[in-house]
Amino acid sequence: MTEVDLRLDARWLIPIVPPGTLPNHSLLVKGGRIIAIAPTALAARDFTATEHVRLSSHAILPGLVNAHTHAAMSLLRGIADDVPLKTWLADHIWPCEQRFVSPEFVYDGTLLAAGEMLLGGITCCNDMYFFPDAAAGAYRASGMRAMIGLPVLDFATPYAADVDGYLHAGLAARDTWKNEPLLSFSLAPHAPYTVGDAGWTKIIVYARQLDLPVQTHLLETEDERAQSLALHHVAPLQRLHHLGATGPAFIAIHAVHVDGDDIEILASQSSHVIHCPTSNMKLASGIAPVAALIKRGINVALGSDGAASNNRLDVFAESRLAALLAKIVTGDASAVPAATALKMATLNGACALGLDREIGSLEPGKQADVISVDLGSFAHAPCYDPISHLVHVTGRDQVTDVWVAGARIVAGGMLARLDARDLAQRARLWQDRIEKR
Amino acid sequence: MTEVDLRLDARWLIPIVPPGTLPNHSLLVKGGRIIAIAPTALAARDFTATEHVRLSSHAILPGLVNAHTHAAMSLLRGIADDVPLKTWLADHIWPCEQRFVSPEFVYDGTLLAAGEMLLGGITCCNDMYFFPDAAAGAYRASGMRAMIGLPVLDFATPYAADVDGYLHAGLAARDTWKNEPLLSFSLAPHAPYTVGDAGWTKIIVYARQLDLPVQTHLLETEDERAQSLALHHVAPLQRLHHLGATGPAFIAIHAVHVDGDDIEILASQSSHVIHCPTSNMKLASGIAPVAALIKRGINVALGSDGAASNNRLDVFAESRLAALLAKIVTGDASAVPAATALKMATLNGACALGLDREIGSLEPGKQADVISVDLGSFAHAPCYDPISHLVHVTGRDQVTDVWVAGARIVAGGMLARLDARDLAQRARLWQDRIEKR
Repeated sequence: MTEVDLRLDARWLIPIVPPGTLPNHSLLVKGGRIIAIAPTALAARDFTATEHVRLSSHAILPGLVNAHTHAAMSLLRGIADDVPLKTWLADHIWPCEQRFVSPEFVYDGTLLAAGEMLLGGITCCNDMYFFPDAAAGAYRASGMRAMIGLPVLDFATPYAADVDGYLHAGLAARDTWKNEPLLSFSLAPHAPYTVGDAGWTKIIVYARQLDLPVQTHLLETEDERAQSLALHHVAPLQRLHHLGATGPAFIAIHAVHVDGDDIEILASQSSHVIHCPTSNMKLASGIAPVAALIKRGINVALGSDGAASNNRLDVFAESRLAALLAKIVTGDASAVPAATALKMATLNGACALGLDREIGSLEPGKQADVISVDLGSFAHAPCYDPISHLVHVTGRDQVTDVWVAGARIVAGGMLARLDARDLAQRARLWQDRIEKR
Repeated sequence: MTEVDLRLDARWLIPIVPPGTLPNHSLLVKGGRIIAIAPTALAARDFTATEHVRLSSHAILPGLVNAHTHAAMSLLRGIADDVPLKTWLADHIWPCEQRFVSPEFVYDGTLLAAGEMLLGGITCCNDMYFFPDAAAGAYRASGMRAMIGLPVLDFATPYAADVDGYLHAGLAARDTWKNEPLLSFSLAPHAPYTVGDAGWTKIIVYARQLDLPVQTHLLETEDERAQSLALHHVAPLQRLHHLGATGPAFIAIHAVHVDGDDIEILASQSSHVIHCPTSNMKLASGIAPVAALIKRGINVALGSDGAASNNRLDVFAESRLAALLAKIVTGDASAVPAATALKMATLNGACALGLDREIGSLEPGKQADVISVDLGSFAHAPCYDPISHLVHVTGRDQVTDVWVAGARIVAGGMLARLDARDLAQRARLWQDRIEKR
């Protein structure tokens, strides 16, 4: 008998790698890592576990990865609906941020978002917002895994004055938190149109020196290409490519209006695309050519974007919508089948963040970032294929338990480390302040 | 003090008519009907209630109307994903139906669907399936309101042999159940391409004699127009219009590939369109021009379609998707704002079914079909606008209580008249049979 810390017996185990569903299998965890996967009958024979959880009507799968969000914007959830990106930013979001964003805002908003994401089965996110130091503190309190983007803009905000200021503050935050096992960092120039060549050049130097990924909003709206051609005489992605930004640690967020040349750059550089279907639809930005990107071999992951343009942080919903959108855009009902959508929500997110050796699938040796989804309700019956059900039938509300690095941080649908009443109270206080503006 | 049966005190009351949100208002119910709406302070002064329910963090609103479904197909939920409509029907659904559909299948499948819909805040649906007699029995057992389509096809199925057979069986079912207060009936020729002119002519005669609405699948896929032009030398809707099918009791389901002429017919005839966004995307059928239909004054309601092509019966999800799709199709982020999406999910459904004098809004005199949605979780906070939250943030899982004609049939998220374990058991038995095929 091998001693382990945790044994999960699941009705279905969906490892992502290899593809498919393992009925009546168990996951064995020791020291926060998966050490074995076995049929439950064999697990019972070969392992003795300190903690043993029976999930008799559940699927267990890797925790979802929300590969693009602005977590603290949860405090602006639904503050401005039914307006396009430019108006939404210029008339609503930026003025509100200018007035309210502070380390306290970011800590409270990130804590709220982490609680929402964890309850919905998201064990890791890729964040991009001001005051990353405050965000890091919130993630540590929540027990969630996160890659924190260190934002850079050419213009001043309450967080920093200029490119050097952003980089200085961001790298200081990284220095503070770099030994936290669940946190990692990237450089996050906001977009090609908000950071000039000088800024990009500095960012690329730091990224190489410190071995940090670079994430940026790319071609979210149609006019970005024309604007770049007018100002820089080169298309946005070509410009970043010439500056040296692209490569396997380059994360292109949205990539709605990429053309054939852009796709070739992304593919040849082994760069990543984060598809944010709800946000792109809600702001009427356009639809990323996901089927074409996948066909060309580009890694496509999923993001909720911030709660101000979604208005929920729900990767189950994004996976369903990604599957539906790909079908309607291509006119091919076989585009993005359920298994692909679920891989986009898990392993592809891990790949984009450079964390695929640690998370994104249930494989021996990887971190035990695991979620349990109850498929037992009559409202989800019958269940001919659990993978199809995870994408098309259930939702985040069916997540019962969440483990990050083997620690159970959601148990029976309740947060273990965060206090739901405290989170509601923090949200209420910020809502009162913001409504009085 | 006026005596009433039921008083609901809600944090927000969303009547749909008039538009907007009433904070801290109460709904007063007597004899199954709404008799007043008042600020809670005044309701406490003026009314004494047999039952008093405090919904301190909830929005109450009219029950949702699922204006197109094939309820019994819940038993085929997820049986064939990622295939287009024609393959889906010809290779998967029709053979399975031919083998299994029976009154028992329809009763069990409809009961399962009714349970799912009620838990998700749907108080009324517009059904279309074989063995409507069995469906009616299931709806009565559930306590749900339904309009039951009496199906007609030119070809034989396990239910009937030919047009006369379908009409005979359907009208007999109507005779059996026509005095049930929560049930109503329509004639449901499957589609222009599956019922010939002779069949349509008979259906139209019966519809006029018996004052029944006519519902049909219309232009769900692109080839229907060419096929009709080749066979009938006229476009599908023009054909039905010439035969006399259109008018204010004509319900066009899907209407994906309507052109300008079709839109003029629908508008001039005051006919209705049922938009089924998930199903249309999942089968890659296309996207109905909802914004154009609404602009032309056509009543557009929402449907889930059957669980075999969705794979859930969730009008909250359809309302969100309708809003998002309209924005992306038009490139206008202000298309189908949240209030419009919520009206599509409630009053517009009631209008399409000819039931808008009875249901679809919270107005004195109407039936008390009411649902309560808890917006109090931190995961939905902050809440700047409850209507936006109902469409973009919450989901069916936040529905706590459901009343139909004043009777509470979901209480605290639990079905009052149906047994969840019995429903799961029925689904399991059918799944076993179908998987052995």
